[in-house]
Formats: sequence, structure tokens, C-alpha cells
Amino acid sequence: MNSYNITPTNKEFEVQIDHKIDHKTKPLHSLGTLEKIAKKLCLIQDTLEPTLNKPTMLVFAGDHGIVNSHAVSSCPQEVTPQMVLNFLAGGAGINVFCKQHNFDLSVVDCGVNFDFEPNDKLINVKIAKGTKDYSVEPAMTAEQVEKALRISGEIVAEKHKNGSNIISVGEMGIGNTSSASLLMSAIIKMPIEECIGKGAGLDSEGVLNKIDILTKVQKLHGVSEDPFVNLQNFGGFEIAMMAGAMLKAAELKMTVIIDGFIATSSLLVAQAINPNVLDYCLYSHVSNEQGHIKMLEFLNATAILHLEMRLGEGTGAAIAYPIIQSSEILINQMASFESAGVTDSVN
Amino acid sequence: MNSYNITPTNKEFEVQIDHKIDHKTKPLHSLGTLEKIAKKLCLIQDTLEPTLNKPTMLVFAGDHGIVNSHAVSSCPQEVTPQMVLNFLAGGAGINVFCKQHNFDLSVVDCGVNFDFEPNDKLINVKIAKGTKDYSVEPAMTAEQVEKALRISGEIVAEKHKNGSNIISVGEMGIGNTSSASLLMSAIIKMPIEECIGKGAGLDSEGVLNKIDILTKVQKLHGVSEDPFVNLQNFGGFEIAMMAGAMLKAAELKMTVIIDGFIATSSLLVAQAINPNVLDYCLYSHVSNEQGHIKMLEFLNATAILHLEMRLGEGTGAAIAYPIIQSSEILINQMASFESAGVTDSVN
Repeated sequence: MNSYNITPTNKEFEVQIDHKIDHKTKPLHSLGTLEKIAKKLCLIQDTLEPTLNKPTMLVFAGDHGIVNSHAVSSCPQEVTPQMVLNFLAGGAGINVFCKQHNFDLSVVDCGVNFDFEPNDKLINVKIAKGTKDYSVEPAMTAEQVEKALRISGEIVAEKHKNGSNIISVGEMGIGNTSSASLLMSAIIKMPIEECIGKGAGLDSEGVLNKIDILTKVQKLHGVSEDPFVNLQNFGGFEIAMMAGAMLKAAELKMTVIIDGFIATSSLLVAQAINPNVLDYCLYSHVSNEQGHIKMLEFLNATAILHLEMRLGEGTGAAIAYPIIQSSEILINQMASFESAGVTDSVN
Repeated sequence: MNSYNITPTNKEFEVQIDHKIDHKTKPLHSLGTLEKIAKKLCLIQDTLEPTLNKPTMLVFAGDHGIVNSHAVSSCPQEVTPQMVLNFLAGGAGINVFCKQHNFDLSVVDCGVNFDFEPNDKLINVKIAKGTKDYSVEPAMTAEQVEKALRISGEIVAEKHKNGSNIISVGEMGIGNTSSASLLMSAIIKMPIEECIGKGAGLDSEGVLNKIDILTKVQKLHGVSEDPFVNLQNFGGFEIAMMAGAMLKAAELKMTVIIDGFIATSSLLVAQAINPNVLDYCLYSHVSNEQGHIKMLEFLNATAILHLEMRLGEGTGAAIAYPIIQSSEILINQMASFESAGVTDSVN
């Protein structure tokens, strides 16, 4: 299967980075999380003067076979193509926040159950019109998993070639919190019921029903030690593509901004394929989808924002971007005690 | 003393605002805190289409007499003018973050113990070269308090006249966490030791010493029910000016972004003078200075950012600004279910 050559960042460089940050004109450590982000940018780019070039957002859209047989979502499947059309028209959350922060936004149809007219903003790499219903068979074939990982990597490589060094991935796919919960349970080995939340808006009865359905799905397929097999059984095309995008971006030494619950389920898969991917990730926010904070704890990750969001699409990553910019600005533009002639408070 | 005519926002308008937000193309409430901020902007401006015009940052600098007799800070007093010069040269945190977000930044010398050369970027309204030492006498006279509140209001009114409708205030003044702690204790009636933290960088022994000193100061002056008297006894010129700026901004129906511990101590004073000021405030972040979260709890305030910052200068407010912009963009630019042709998930 797909393999990735990801270089771990050079931890020995940390002393030099800390020295630069600690001599900026501010009380020691007083910029908190911004200092940690600045440090990670330096490690990723192996420089004391990191840059953020051409931020890229890829939104992957795909449908899920399970939705046709079981009520795992509060929305009908038709909402997936409707929202893709909304992305193309510029009216969705991810559009307006990407516009705010000058992200290059592309929408990728990897598996929507709908035929879209050709559109400049839509990358058509549809693998199938939705995954298979995993309540009866694996969601994808091994070939589909391989293809999804490979194609999203190619899209990322193209963006990198055009000068982007920071990327995020988002998703749209009615039913995809169910896939994310199944993958989470399989990879971090947490009981399935602790991995399930209300998604787009299930009530408590709906959540209980979702737990019942996904418990049976997990029993049918079992959980595997092989991340590719878990993807095949439980994945969505968009979840597989996001994992492939993260892995390729890390291989290319790009900074990867991780969005919420679904995107983090892709990262769980990606780090099971190659753990070095984590050296390249920043965590944009803690989602209100209840499983997300447990994923972040498993990854030992500190989220930038705590805004009780649970929209998906990559919106958390876009909204966190200016905080990452502030971190870059802190290390590149703030004066040092020496340059500003301020009495040094660092011993 | 100074009085302010602040109109409470119209809570009956909330139903209309909620209707607009709830029909945007997203799961109900899925933009969390952004939706709450958008709602507050609508209430403040009494419109469903709020705008953010010419964000303004005023950084007030002043010295504190207590620093000359007692070791309440880890920094010497000379750092106040050194940092003001750093502000004027553009190298401090507040400079680079204001530049990032196109804030109009002005530095106000209201009481620094130093003679600055004239400078376009410096507003010279020095009341005295530092406050009096409140370990022996009140920090300010009643006339100085009146003057500080009035002058900062005049500065805000000028910015408003030039088209600004959103403002924040920051501060620089070695020793000012001590003033903030004394004001906090007096106004929210919390024991002084629970209001004291490490400031710019005291160690645990330094914090114990600060508690001992400020406990004696509080005994000397007592606490008053009159916010003007508390300001006189414990205030700094910059703290009084920030309170006056907040009150005038609210009177002018401007949105006020509250920074960290010192700025919030000014808000505690301001709301004791006129509680309607709170209708105009957004809370940028929770500071790592330990008393700040208790201040926010007293105000029933939800902070936007949790970044473990404790730099002051207004930096938290500047860094939170793009999140406020995202909220404005959400309500003005996102499509509705109807306009986008997306199946409505709102009942």
C-alpha cells in the first residue's frame, strides 16, 4: 500500500528557537500558545525565520452508503451535493472564512452521489457515487483506498509546486461523523459509544440509535491493526483523501492545520500509517462534537481555539489561521531586548 | 464626578438576530462562540448588518509610586519608558499585532516618570510623573481621577469622530498588576490574596511578598463602595484612563474589546460607575495572570481566546480581532438555506 517518506523535525534545534523567542521584548513565556506555534513553525521549516506562503484549503466531498439504510444523520443525503453547490457559489462558512484570510480554496468531489456540471472551482476525482453500505459490506475496496490516498497526494503536490507551504483539509459528507467514530474507536481503542456524538444535530434518541447501529457495524467487521483495512471497512472517500493529503503535505514539509472531528479521524489514520506526520500538524480548535477532545488527548495535542464550533468544512482551521500568522509575526517582527534597548527580564 | 449616558442594548431585537443566524447554511448553533459575538455586534449597532470600521487601539502608559518603596514587580521602573520607546519604534508585541490587523494604534503618556521627545505617535497628556506611593497616601487626588477619565474620553471621542466604531485599550506600567489586584479585591469583594498573581514574572517568594505588601495597603485605605474613591486610593493613571475610555466608547455605541487582567480591572471600575458599559464589551482572552478568570466569572463573561497569554499592552484584544471579524462575516456574508437552496435543518 501507499508509503510516505516523512522526515521528523530536528528537536536539537529547539534550544536556538527558545533563545530567540525568550529574548523578544515581553515577559518570559507571556505569549503562551503563540510561542509554541512559532516554535513548531521553526521546527517544520528548519529556520528561525519561518514564512507562511499561499495558504491552501482543500474541501473533500463524498457520500456514505450507510445513510441509505440507517438513520445515522439528522440530514438527508441530498444535503451533500446541495452544500457542494453552495461551496461553488461562495456562500458557505468555509468560503467566507477562506476569503477573509486569503486561502486558495478548492472543492474536491471524491464521491458525491450527484453529477455536477463542470466548474473551474471543482476538482472532479470521483471514485464512486458514495461508499458501499458498511452495515453489510466494507465501505471501500483496497483499490479505492489506494486511489483515494494517491490522488489527494497528487493534488497537494500540485499546490506545493505552486508555492504553498501551509495547508488544511476540510470535508462535506452527510453521515461522515459515523465513519469518523468507527475509525476513532478502531485506532485509539476506545469503546464505540464513547466515540459517538450528535453530528450535525441528532437529538439524544438519535444518538442512542446511532450507537446501536455503529456497534453492530463494528461487530460485523471487527477492528484491525492495519489502518488501511480500517479505512476500507469504515472510511469515506473524503476521509481517506484527507489522510492522504496530510501525509503528502508532511512529506513535502508543509505545515498542516488540522480542523475538527472528521479531519482528526483522518489524522488518526494518517499517524497510524506514518507517525512522523504529527511533527507537521497544528490543531486549530476543539470541536463541540464530543469525541474530538478525546482524539486530541490521544494525540497529546493542544488546540488553538475553543469556540464551541462543530461545522466542519475546514472552518475551524480557516478561523485559527490568523493566530498562526500572529505566531509567525511574533518571531519575525518583534524586537529583542537588545535591539530595543529594554532591560532584559530573562536571567 | 464624571457621569455617562450609556443606552442599554435592545434585548427585544434578539429574536430577529437569532432568526438570521439560525438560517445560515450550517447545522444549528454550529459556529458556537462566533454566533454569540455576531449577535452582540448586532445588538450594539442595532442592526442585522453590523460593520467593523477603523479598529482603534489606545495604549496608556503610566508609572506607579509603590514601585519606588516596595518590590511588587520583577521589573525596574525604567522598563516603562523603555517599552514606550519600543512602542514608538514599532517593535513591541502590540505594534506587530496591530499592524497585522490594521489597527490605528496610539500611545498615550498619562503618567510615565520620564520626559519623552515630541513624537507624532505619542499623545502627551501626562498627569504627573507617576502616581503617589499608596503604601503611605492615596495614589491620586480626586482631581487627577476626574482629569484622567475626562481626557481619555476626549481621545476616544476624537477616534469615533474619525469613523472608528470598535476600540480596545491596553496599558504599560511597571507595578500595575498591583493596582489591578487592589481594585479587583475592592470591587468584587474577594480577599486580596486571591487577586494577586506573578505579574510580569515574580517567583513564588515574590508573590508572597506582594501579598504581604498589598494586604497592608488595603488595610491602610480600606475598601470603598465608591468606585472613584477606590480609583483614587489604588489606581494608576493608565487604569483610570482605560476606564474612562471604555465608558465613553460605550456612550458612543462603539464595540469595546477587553484585553487582560489590567484592562479588566478598569472595566470593573467602569461597570461600578455605569453597569450599562457591559452591553458594549467583548472579552478577548483569558489571561494566565491568575486573578483574571475570576474577574471574568464575576462579569459573567465568555472569553474568545484561551492562549495562556499574559503580556498586556492590549495584545490579547488585537489577536482576538480576526475572530470578531469572522463573526461579522458570518452574519453578513454566509448564504441562508433559502438563498442557497439547501434543505433547511432548522425546524
